[in-house]
Parts: sequence; C-alpha cells; structure tokens
Amino acid sequence: MNEITMKLQADRLIRMALEEDISSEDVSTNSVMPEARDGAVDLIAKEEGVIAGLPVFARVFTLLDETTETEFFAKDGDEVKPGQKLAVVRGDIRVLLSGERTALNYLQRMSGIATYTRRVAKLLEGTSTKLLDTRKTMPNNRIFEKYAVRVGGGNNHRYNLSDGVMLKDNHIGAAGGVREAIEAARAYAPFVRRIEVETETLDMVREAVEAGADIIMLDNMDHAAMAEALKIIDGRADTECSGNVTMENIAALTDLGIDYISSGALTHSARILDISMKNLHPTD
Amino acid sequence: MNEITMKLQADRLIRMALEEDISSEDVSTNSVMPEARDGAVDLIAKEEGVIAGLPVFARVFTLLDETTETEFFAKDGDEVKPGQKLAVVRGDIRVLLSGERTALNYLQRMSGIATYTRRVAKLLEGTSTKLLDTRKTMPNNRIFEKYAVRVGGGNNHRYNLSDGVMLKDNHIGAAGGVREAIEAARAYAPFVRRIEVETETLDMVREAVEAGADIIMLDNMDHAAMAEALKIIDGRADTECSGNVTMENIAALTDLGIDYISSGALTHSARILDISMKNLHPTD
Amino acid sequence: MNEITMKLQADRLIRMALEEDISSEDVSTNSVMPEARDGAVDLIAKEEGVIAGLPVFARVFTLLDETTETEFFAKDGDEVKPGQKLAVVRGDIRVLLSGERTALNYLQRMSGIATYTRRVAKLLEGTSTKLLDTRKTMPNNRIFEKYAVRVGGGNNHRYNLSDGVMLKDNHIGAAGGVREAIEAARAYAPFVRRIEVETETLDMVREAVEAGADIIMLDNMDHAAMAEALKIIDGRADTECSGNVTMENIAALTDLGIDYISSGALTHSARILDISMKNLHPTD
Amino acid sequence: MNEITMKLQADRLIRMALEEDISSEDVSTNSVMPEARDGAVDLIAKEEGVIAGLPVFARVFTLLDETTETEFFAKDGDEVKPGQKLAVVRGDIRVLLSGERTALNYLQRMSGIATYTRRVAKLLEGTSTKLLDTRKTMPNNRIFEKYAVRVGGGNNHRYNLSDGVMLKDNHIGAAGGVREAIEAARAYAPFVRRIEVETETLDMVREAVEAGADIIMLDNMDHAAMAEALKIIDGRADTECSGNVTMENIAALTDLGIDYISSGALTHSARILDISMKNLHPTD
Amino acid sequence: MNEITMKLQADRLIRMALEEDISSEDVSTNSVMPEARDGAVDLIAKEEGVIAGLPVFARVFTLLDETTETEFFAKDGDEVKPGQKLAVVRGDIRVLLSGERTALNYLQRMSGIATYTRRVAKLLEGTSTKLLDTRKTMPNNRIFEKYAVRVGGGNNHRYNLSDGVMLKDNHIGAAGGVREAIEAARAYAPFVRRIEVETETLDMVREAVEAGADIIMLDNMDHAAMAEALKIIDGRADTECSGNVTMENIAALTDLGIDYISSGALTHSARILDISMKNLHPTD
Amino acid sequence: MNEITMKLQADRLIRMALEEDISSEDVSTNSVMPEARDGAVDLIAKEEGVIAGLPVFARVFTLLDETTETEFFAKDGDEVKPGQKLAVVRGDIRVLLSGERTALNYLQRMSGIATYTRRVAKLLEGTSTKLLDTRKTMPNNRIFEKYAVRVGGGNNHRYNLSDGVMLKDNHIGAAGGVREAIEAARAYAPFVRRIEVETETLDMVREAVEAGADIIMLDNMDHAAMAEALKIIDGRADTECSGNVTMENIAALTDLGIDYISSGALTHSARILDISMKNLHPTD
Repeated sequence: MNEITMKLQADRLIRMALEEDISSEDVSTNSVMPEARDGAVDLIAKEEGVIAGLPVFARVFTLLDETTETEFFAKDGDEVKPGQKLAVVRGDIRVLLSGERTALNYLQRMSGIATYTRRVAKLLEGTSTKLLDTRKTMPNNRIFEKYAVRVGGGNNHRYNLSDGVMLKDNHIGAAGGVREAIEAARAYAPFVRRIEVETETLDMVREAVEAGADIIMLDNMDHAAMAEALKIIDGRADTECSGNVTMENIAALTDLGIDYISSGALTHSARILDISMKNLHPTD
Repeated sequence: MNEITMKLQADRLIRMALEEDISSEDVSTNSVMPEARDGAVDLIAKEEGVIAGLPVFARVFTLLDETTETEFFAKDGDEVKPGQKLAVVRGDIRVLLSGERTALNYLQRMSGIATYTRRVAKLLEGTSTKLLDTRKTMPNNRIFEKYAVRVGGGNNHRYNLSDGVMLKDNHIGAAGGVREAIEAARAYAPFVRRIEVETETLDMVREAVEAGADIIMLDNMDHAAMAEALKIIDGRADTECSGNVTMENIAALTDLGIDYISSGALTHSARILDISMKNLHPTD
Repeated sequence: MNEITMKLQADRLIRMALEEDISSEDVSTNSVMPEARDGAVDLIAKEEGVIAGLPVFARVFTLLDETTETEFFAKDGDEVKPGQKLAVVRGDIRVLLSGERTALNYLQRMSGIATYTRRVAKLLEGTSTKLLDTRKTMPNNRIFEKYAVRVGGGNNHRYNLSDGVMLKDNHIGAAGGVREAIEAARAYAPFVRRIEVETETLDMVREAVEAGADIIMLDNMDHAAMAEALKIIDGRADTECSGNVTMENIAALTDLGIDYISSGALTHSARILDISMKNLHPTD
Repeated sequence: MNEITMKLQADRLIRMALEEDISSEDVSTNSVMPEARDGAVDLIAKEEGVIAGLPVFARVFTLLDETTETEFFAKDGDEVKPGQKLAVVRGDIRVLLSGERTALNYLQRMSGIATYTRRVAKLLEGTSTKLLDTRKTMPNNRIFEKYAVRVGGGNNHRYNLSDGVMLKDNHIGAAGGVREAIEAARAYAPFVRRIEVETETLDMVREAVEAGADIIMLDNMDHAAMAEALKIIDGRADTECSGNVTMENIAALTDLGIDYISSGALTHSARILDISMKNLHPTD
Repeated sequence: MNEITMKLQADRLIRMALEEDISSEDVSTNSVMPEARDGAVDLIAKEEGVIAGLPVFARVFTLLDETTETEFFAKDGDEVKPGQKLAVVRGDIRVLLSGERTALNYLQRMSGIATYTRRVAKLLEGTSTKLLDTRKTMPNNRIFEKYAVRVGGGNNHRYNLSDGVMLKDNHIGAAGGVREAIEAARAYAPFVRRIEVETETLDMVREAVEAGADIIMLDNMDHAAMAEALKIIDGRADTECSGNVTMENIAALTDLGIDYISSGALTHSARILDISMKNLHPTD
Repeated sequence: MNEITMKLQADRLIRMALEEDISSEDVSTNSVMPEARDGAVDLIAKEEGVIAGLPVFARVFTLLDETTETEFFAKDGDEVKPGQKLAVVRGDIRVLLSGERTALNYLQRMSGIATYTRRVAKLLEGTSTKLLDTRKTMPNNRIFEKYAVRVGGGNNHRYNLSDGVMLKDNHIGAAGGVREAIEAARAYAPFVRRIEVETETLDMVREAVEAGADIIMLDNMDHAAMAEALKIIDGRADTECSGNVTMENIAALTDLGIDYISSGALTHSARILDISMKNLHPTD
C-alpha cells in the first residue's frame, strides 16, 4: 500500500483498531514486563495463498513504537506456502505482544481477500473479461479491502457513492426515464464521471444504450438474456455483469465477451488466510 | 443491541462508515432527486439463517435523517427463511438509497456471524461445554461482531487486552515462571479479573493449576493430551480448548467435558447472510 | 444543499467553525444574558448578486440550538437586490448573537462565489461551452464552494485527487509516455473514471488523442494553438481549456467550440457578497 | 508561523485539508508511480506581492512524508517579484504531486491577504492610526488568516467570541443600558479583557465613555460624526472606526486621529496571490 | 452553565467521559436488563455546601438518552443541606445506572470547587479585593472548573495562554527589559488584551508601572513588600497578589487594598462535595 | 507509565489538554520570542510526598516539540523532599514556557494522589487487607489517576463499567433475586469476569455467598455487621469493604481480616503535591 495513502487514510483507522483492542492498557503484558526488552518474532504463513497487507501489518507496530522494525522476506502479491517465513519483527517485546492480534487481523483478512480474488481472476484468464469488486466491504475497512482486491489481480469498481455514478431503477423512476436520468447526471455530476446504468430487462438495456450510457450493468440476468443484451449494446457502451457471482459459478460467464464481471463475494465472503506470529524471543 | 451501547459506541463507527461511503455526496441520487420524497422499501431475507443487527441496520438510516422509521417483522436472533420480509423502512427516498449499502454491509455480516455461531453452538447442545468467540474480529467492528456471537448463542471471551488477563508463554518467560506470572498479574491487574494461563504441554498445565490459575487454556493439544489435562486439573480451574476450531471439527471435542471451546472462525471466517432491500417505491 | 450531504459532511465542518469562534464561551453575550430570551432577526442583502448557502446559514443556528427556526423569503440561486429581506431567524437571542458571524461568513463567501460564477457563466450563454471550477478552493471549505459554483450555474470538475484522473507531464514522464500513462491509469483506477490528460503542446495533444484519452486539457495555450488542437482532436475526446481564466478574458475563448473552460478564479478570487443580519429584537 | 502554534493548531487543519483532497488515494499518481522516486520542484511567484505562509506550505509536504525538505529563498513578509524563486521542495515525487494543490491553496490565499493588508497599511503610514482585521475570516482558516494579516503589517482584533468583549446594541439593550452592560461584563468576563462598546450615535458614545468603556467603536458613522465622537471621547478610551473600509476608501479616514481602523475586506475580499510549482524533475 | 457553551464545548468532553467509563458496554446493567424500563432516582446532598454543575449532571443522562428528564429542586449557587433533595431524574433505569458515576463525578467536583470558593470569597467580604482563580485546573476540565469558581462567587483570571497576556521574568529577559516586553506584547497581541506583568521585586514593580502595564502581579511577596508595591503603583495599574493563597492564610492579605487575589487552591485542592443518587425505583 | 499506554491512550488526552490551554497561540511567549532559543529549566519538589507522572510531565513537552529532552533525577514512586531537584527539561524556551502549566497540572495531581494513597496504604501494612481505588476519578483523567494509585501502593478496582461486573440492589431487583442476577451475569458477561455483588444487609450477604458470588462488597455496614458478614462468608468469596473510607477512619477496619478496602477519597479528595519549574535560563 502506497505510503501516502497509508499515512493519510490508513493510520487513523489502524490507530482506532489498536484503541479498540487496548481501551486502557494491555494488562497481561504490563503485569509481567514493567520495562522494555528487545526481542524478535517471526511471521509465518500457515496455509497456501496470496499475501496482502504486509505494510499494514508492519504499521501496527510502528504506530505503537516508531522504533519497531520489520524485515520482509515476501511482498504483497506473492504466493506463499505453509511454513514460509514472511517477515521478522524486531522491537520492544511488549510492543510485539500488544500489537500482534490487531496486526494479524488486518493481514489475515487482506490476504484472504487477495487469495480468493486471485483464484477467481484465474478463471477469467485468456478472456477479455475483467474482474471487479463492489462496495460490499466491511465498514471502515474499504481502503484495505479494495487494495487487497488489486493485489489479488482484480480491478476496483467505484470507491464509494461520491466518486461514481450508478443509476438504478429508482433513480430512473425519479428522473422520469433513462434518458432523463442520464441527462440529469451529466448536468449534475463532475464531468469526469462515466455514467453507469443498472438494467434488469432488455428494454432497459435498449433505452440505456440509446441514451448514451457509458457503462451498462446487466443485473441478475440469465445467460441468454446477457448474450442478447451484448448484441443490443454492440460495443456502444462498456458492459458489466453482476449478481451473486462466486468462484463456483463464474466459469459460466466467460464465453459472453462481457467487459467486466463484478463480485461482492471477493470482499464479503472470502475467508481469512491463516498466518501466525511464532518464536517470539528476547534478543538482548 | 442495547440503545446505550448503540449511542455511545456504535454511532461513531456507523457515522464513519457512512462517511467512508459518501466522502462528498451521493452523486447519483442527488443528480436525479433534488427534493425529498417519501418512500418505503422492504428488507427481505434471501437465504436461511439467523438475523442479527436489525437495530444497527435501522440506525444507519436515522443517522442520515432522524425521521426515518423502520418497522420490524423480525427481531435479532430469529431464524429467517428465504423471501421472508424482515422490515419496512419508510422515509425520504434519498435517505433509503444513500444508506442502503452501509446498512446491508452491517446486517449481512452480523447475520452471517450469528448464523454460523448458531450452527456451531448446536453441535454442543446436550453437553456442558460452552462456545466462545475470540479477538479475531474485523478491525473497528468488534462491538458488532461480539454482539452477533451472543445473538447466535455463543459466549464472549474477553473483549480486548484491557479487560482480561491471558498469560502466554512469553509472559511466563518474562516473569520467570508460571507462579511468578500469576502473582505478577494478581498484583497488577484490577482484582476483578480472572487470570487465564495458556498451556501447550501437560507440564505447563500442572504448573498452572498448582499456581492457582482461574482458567487454563489448552492450546492446540490433541484429544488424548486434553483428556489427560482435564484429569490433572480436576475441577480446580475452568478449562478452555482453543486452536482452529470450526464447524467441521468441533464434534470431536464434545466428549471431553471441557468447560469452553473458543473458535476464531465464528468471526473471521463466517460468510455473510444474503439479505436485500427490495421494492423501493414512493409513498406520497 | 442536500440534507444528507449537510448532515454527513457539512455539520462536522460547521461545528468546527463554531468552536473556532467560541473556544470557551461567548463572553459578551453570556455577561449580559444569563437566561434565554426569544427574539428574531432579519437577514438582509446589501448588494445585488446570487444567494447561495441559505441552508448552511440556517444550520449554524440549529447546531447551537435545535429549536431555532429560519423562515426563508428567498432560495439558493435567486438573484437578490440590495435591501431585500432574505430570511427571518427566530430563537434564543443568545443563539442569534453567538452564531451570527459564523453564519454570515459562510453565506457571504458562498454567495460571492455564486454571484461571480453566474456572471462568468452568462458570458458563455449561447455557446456549447460549459464553465468548470477547479480544486483551487479554500481548505476545509470545498463541499461548500463546489456547491456554490453549481448554484451559480457552473459545473464541477473532479472533487479531489481520489475521484478523477488527470495525467500531467510528470505523470506521463514517470510512466514513460502518454500511452503508457493512460494504460497505467486504466489498469489501476476504478473503471468508472474518465481519464484526462493535460497537454501543453500540439504534439502532446496528438499523442493523447491517439492514446485514447477521454478528456484532453489544453493548458495555457494561445488562441491559435487551441484552435489547431481542436482540429487535431476532432471530436475524439472531450476538450477543456484551462489557465488563468477570469470574467475579464473569457470572452476571447467562446468562439473555439471547446467543450469546457475551467476557472480557478470562481473559487479563489471571488469577493464576498455583502449580506447582514439586522433588527434583532426580543419577541416575548 | 510559530512552530508550536503550527503543531498544536495548524497541523490538525492541514491534515483535514489533505484528507479533503485525498479521500481515498491520489489515483493519478498511484497509477503511474508504484514506487517512491526522489525529485525536486521549484516554488515560483507569478505576480508581485507579499509572501505569507511558507511554513504552512512546507508543512503540507512533511505531513505527507516527514522526510520531505523545503529550502527557502524567501521568508514570510518579503515582497516578491514575478518569476522569483521562493523555495525548492525535495522529496518523493509522489508526495510533491499529491500535496501540491493543498500547499498552494494555503500559500496563495495567505499571501493574497498579506499583500492586500500591506497595501492598505501603507495608506496609514505616517499617521498614528493602526489597521485591524475582523472575525470575517474563512471558516476553519482563522489561525492562518490572522497570521497573514500580521505578516502584511496589520494588527489583530480579538481572535474570537471567547477572548474579547464587544458590547453591541443588543447586549446593551439586554443589560438595560450602557453602564449596566459594562458592569455586567466587568463582573463576568475574565478581568484581563478590555471592554469594547460598539456605538452608532453620539449619544451612545457619550454613555460609553462615561461608563468607562476601554475601547469605543464608531460603527458606520460619517466623517463629521466621527470627528465629533473623538472630541467627546477626548482620549478617555481607545477608538476604533469600522464599516466597509477598503483600500479604496480608507484615505478619507486618516485625518481623524482615530486609534484603530478595522477592515473585514483584509480577509474576506483579498484575491489570491498567484504562485506556482514548476520544474518538477527526478533527482536520482 | 449556558446552554450554548454546554452544547459547543461541554458535550464533547462529557461524551468522552462516558466513553471512558463505558468502553464497550455496561456489562452489569445489560446482563440483567435486556429491555428499557421506566424509573426515577433522587439526587441527595450528603453534606453542606454550594451546589454547582446541575446542568452538567443532567446532560450526562440526556447524552445517553435524550428522553431522560431531570426535575430540579435547587439551582447552581444554592447552599444545600445534608439530606436535601436536589433533583429527580426520570428515564430508562439502564440510563440512570449507566450514567450515575460520570454524572456524580462532575457534580461532586464542581460543587466542591464552588463550596471552597464561596468560603474563601466570604473572607474577602467588606473589602474591595476580588478573588481570582488560576489555570491550575484539571486537564480537560477547565470549562467546568472556571464556571464552578464563578458559581462560588469568585472571578475568572484569563482562560488560557491564548486569551490573556502575562509577562513573566523569562518573557522580560527575552525581550530585553520590562518596557521592551510590554511594547512587544502591545504590537503583537490582539489589542483587546490588557497586559499583565508578573513582578517579584519592588524594582520590577517600578519598571512595570512606568512602562504602562495594565495589571501588575505581586508574586510571592511578603506583606511589607506588597504594601510598598501598592504605594509605588498608586492606582496606575490594577494589582494582583498571587502565591499559595488558601482559605487558611487569605485573611492576612485583606488589609492591603489590593484589587485581586488569585488562588490556585480553588481548583487544585478543593475536596469534593458529597452528593449521591438514592431510591432508584421503577415507575411503570 | 508504560510507553504503549502513553502513546495509545494518554497522548490524545495530553494533546487535548494543550489545546485547551492554547486555543490559538501562546500570545505572551510569541510576542517576545519570535525565534527558537535553547534553554533549560529545573523541576523542583516544594513539599514532601510521592512523585507520580514524570513520564506524563515529559510527554507534554515532546508533544509540543519532539526534540525537547527531560533528564530525570527521580522516578515515579520515589519519596521526594522539599527543594529536591527532580528533573531538568532542555529545549526551545518557548516550548518550556508554553507547556509548563499543563505539565505541572498533570504532575501535581498525580503526585497528590500517589502521596495520599501511600499514606493510607501504610495504615494497612502488616495486615492482609489491600487498598483499592474506585471509579470516582476526574472525567477524562482516569488513565492517569488509576496509574497514580498503583504508584502510591494501592490496587485498582475495575477500570470502568465494561470491564467488571458489580451487581447492586437495582440489578438484583431487575433480575428477580441475587441468584438470578448472578446467573444472568454469568450468561451474558465475558467469562473472564469475576462477579461482585454489593450487599447492605446480612441477608443479602447470605444470598450472595450461596449464589456463588466471586466477590462480596459490604457497603456502608458498621463494624459489628462486617464481622458477622465475614463469618457468614467464611472464605467462600473475596470480601470488599466500602463506604466513605479515608485516611482518618481506615484504622478502625484493619482488625476485620477483610480482603479489600476501597476508598474513593484516594482520587476524589487528594490535594495536589506542590512542585514547580524554576531557574529557566538560556543555554546557548
């Protein structure tokens, strides 16, 4: 993760996560270690997958004590094996103990997302279709999860409601029609936005493409309907397929020649990647 | 979720989640709806599971506009069926659209945890063993996830590093022995804490029980070792079994008569429960 | 200003502005008015212009006391005359006094921007060219200033560095060429972004249009160069003209048929519109 | 600007301004520059004026990356010429790009205020009258704007409602008279405050001076009335003249021998000073 | 306490205090009371003294639940007797239980300060000398403690380092002399400040009065020196006596005719006033 | 105080305290010292007592300027004598002046608590009874005050409402009895909590001990009742005596053999320890 993004956006969230885990003090550690003592601990992968979030992992410790140092033996995006040593963290043992859980919570979740995304993205290899994430992220973790999707080989859809225009049936209804909705968005939204319209029927697809939508999302359509929709659109807009796409069912979509497939499962249902901190020992 | 907890702890997090999703404004909605318009939308379960987080779901909308009203047809802890209507939200359509994703992100995640917890907890029915969560929660979501575990029928382990004492091998090493570590904790920690010791060998179990630990955690032991450990402890301390416990392997632990089994999977690897908002329509 | 945007983004900034002006208490008011007393005050325009920010003005007072009521006789976007009564604010006189300066600071600045924008936008009437703002806004006031530009009849360029892609010569240099920069941006940026390239020479224009830029900005070019650039582009990308555009010099640009003209002056150099609060009097 | 003030008050606001401009990440820069690269950029004045805010300008970059270094060739208060190089900023090119707009937004605004203030202050040279600012500052920018006024040669009136007592007609009405209002303020306000009374008529001037006001403000009086007021006051209180004072009309006030003239225009209507960052280039 | 001050300054601190006491949830109350239940509780004085902070006490409960109502039978500044009922609080019993400690912590401390201040102030009755507080307040409690001093009959010295000028020997040394320090302060500080000089010797007193100090503080002088200092000053400046003044030793200072006596003990060493909440009972 | 606790919990509070004291800038210091100048100042005890809070004292200065250095000649817990030099602080004189009051406000208060606690704790020497604090701390200062109690030789009761279970008569009433309340708490609270029941009569003591309470508090009982209670409990639960315990009356409780005595006076009514900063001088 970019250092500026880390400093400006992630630091605040990581600090809050540490405060969540240490609301007054780490009672166990402070009971037995009144003084600082230098030590080191290994970061070990316990299963196979794609690692993501190493800079976030390291940042947890430097936010507790800026002299903590993490030496990396892997980098974000690497495929790791069970037992592989990914890093050594060196610093005050109390910092290593107090930060462990928060650091792993980030790293395991981000690596889980990257691992799942990589597996899904592989199923699209050799096609022109790209894999997209959604806004179905854990609250107050989007900056981490969207990054993990990119590490895993996916692409990001809009970041949030402010930086992308997606017109759904309710927006269209309120505007009085597809054309009216698109015109309202062009008049109101910053002009650097591409305008996406969510469609559920072929009639809506027709309206959208004629009204000049930049992107047309085919929402929960079956295979035949999507094929027909793509014929209607005929390259006049980018196309996105959406609707409960997972690793299990994405293969059925690869023959369509659709531009993008978005999958909420990348972020909402990836299980964690098991990674642990081992061999903590004093070094002085 | 208790109203005071909601107001004091959850509101701040929910507001941040909304700011994460709306960093300047909801461009799509504001493009087409310059004025408020009354409407309503249904909350529908799309798969079977245990619902958790309805008050959080509703709070998202009242934080955007305090006049929004949610009428519930289910309550936290209910088992719901696909297609079941759980609630109707009524208010300014713009609020319903702008809050939808954040509200569902919370509700789906919390319900996913409750559903998974309920399934695991059922496997312990008829035994004296209780199911515990861990601190393996999503950063800045612990208050929601620990609550969802309770809704699902699990019990909470310590909330964070400040409110529970857990002495691991590194703490014991730093103190100079199990007895010394327990004494240091009794001297330092608020006296309302029970003191738990994490053990990996039967020798450590013996030391811990003799040193007066209140709770002894058997960490990653095999079945035979745990059986032996329980004999050694013989009721002199509460016992907890820990280590990659999931729905798949918990059955093998039920014959031990252990007091508690803790499972990180409850929070770190439950997939979401699919729930959606449907039938948004104007009501004026 | 949309009520949700107000609540989620503006409230926090308005409250900070009030804290800036009242770091402990309003000593003058509290000295002489120990108790609440109902009163009313008029909001009066003192010069001709376009009013913008009335909801922000009113919000200052309700953040101090939610029972304060503002009755409006004008709405954002109206052209107002000297002496025209725009609103009456009714509530605790102490609230009216303590909030006055902060409320007017917002309203006068926003109305100044709307007034200046309206005057510039009028100079583009009858052409196909649209007026854009920039990111040259007062720190921590962008949400208010971008809104005021829209009220004045201008359009918004990207909101910030996160929601629009603008590739400048340094980006292009780092990427190794225009094509490479555009490809890097398409691969990295959320796919809902249109990609803009800033050009300073006709060669850069040629490269950008061939590389598939969505928008081409002509930065500080003279009239002849811009005319030539538009011929080169020939409708294959949207075009934007930028560089010290003000009310005084914009007329020279209207014959070019350029799509957008952006002007930092709309926000960085508009003077305020003079508006005051008068006739404060008790009403009980 | 004093380093302690910067750290305690300004840092928080500058960081918020950066978050306003980078709500998730700088997409353009991060697209093309995945890794840090050393570079340098010049800060160049583009028109004549008084520079103010160089430490704030530099702080923007060190808040993004504390290793960024700014070498100054000018200091706050200097009169600068078009084309004059004011500073070189050296650091990670990504930091230089991501911070540029925010840094310039501060510097241009503060320098615009200092420039305008210097011009107005010059018109008072050779008189005993001092130039004052007001509370008509941009919300959440007062610490910067009041500092810029001092750099330009102006003096600061009270900082906010908490640190100065100004009794207006409504305060006087509420107290039951000028004497009563002054007595109430003396009894209530911290005793280190001087008490100022705003007067609109000669009768109010008489009352105020007899009641022992420390400072008497003559609000929107004509020249003759002010001359008469000064005779009445006769050195028994400091005097301040207020009311739409600008560079254009201040000369008419210099013969009065008034102690202070306050002008909201210093902060609310100064246009920016044009300054830019040029010649960004890699240095490695 | 003024409602605006409460809302703008105190609310933030009170909410933080509640979060300090409820870092996740009130476990005891939530264990036994899953649902809201209406109740009431009495606020009873347990010793004699001056009550201060009733609005703060009540605010604690409305911040937890805005429907909570407090009926007062006393008001800030009243002298109360042991056993006297001061208020009844009515609302959800869970709110009454969860807020009790925080509400009493504020009320007892503020009433302790008001009680001590009243006792010291009484010792000055019949003299022209007024009692002042200092900045020796509990961190993050100054707004409450300065208010309590006023309730007790004391006066406030400057609120903080920003709103009053006090030149100590180090300031004088840095400036190069008393006159130079005063001139520097007049040039720099907002002109609404009165300038105070802290003196330790009669020579410093002479210098200060001749240099035009508005207030001269006599710091830790003995009785004879102070008498001499007052002769030197002879009404040309306000006078303040400072230095370990307590209820026990203030009587010795009353014959001097000094204008102000400041005492840090008012805030740093007052013990609390014992007040409790009793008779909590359901009302439904 | 532990460095991690300091960084995570205390820094935020200390920074707020500095902002409370410097809401815009330190006007006095900035008037006379436009530039940094190296200097040093001594920290001197002015009366006998136990020092606590030296790391907090030093942190105030490094939060203003991280290059400030404090050399300590004493450590927390030391008994100090009048005139004893405790530390030298070296850095920019402006930092030493601007931070002085805030640094001393923390140090004097914390040392006052440690001193009082040490005196009370001495009265329990030779008995098996331990001294406990309560939640009667100054709002937003608990982390500092609970630490000071430990420095003085006391023990900490629960930190807040979230990390300890204390069942009072209202909880018991709501649950329907002592046994029901304890069972509800065991079911709901994290299982690492010990459960304490507050009793006012011998009947309640009997119920509590039979229901398996871990700790029984004897609230405001007389000596005879407590003796009887201890007989009833007979080692089956820990025992705590509570109710207006001070240095003056604690001796009467030492013969009971009670496990813990808690005293709110440790934190709510300790007066400060007088400590000052002296001999500030330039060092360059």
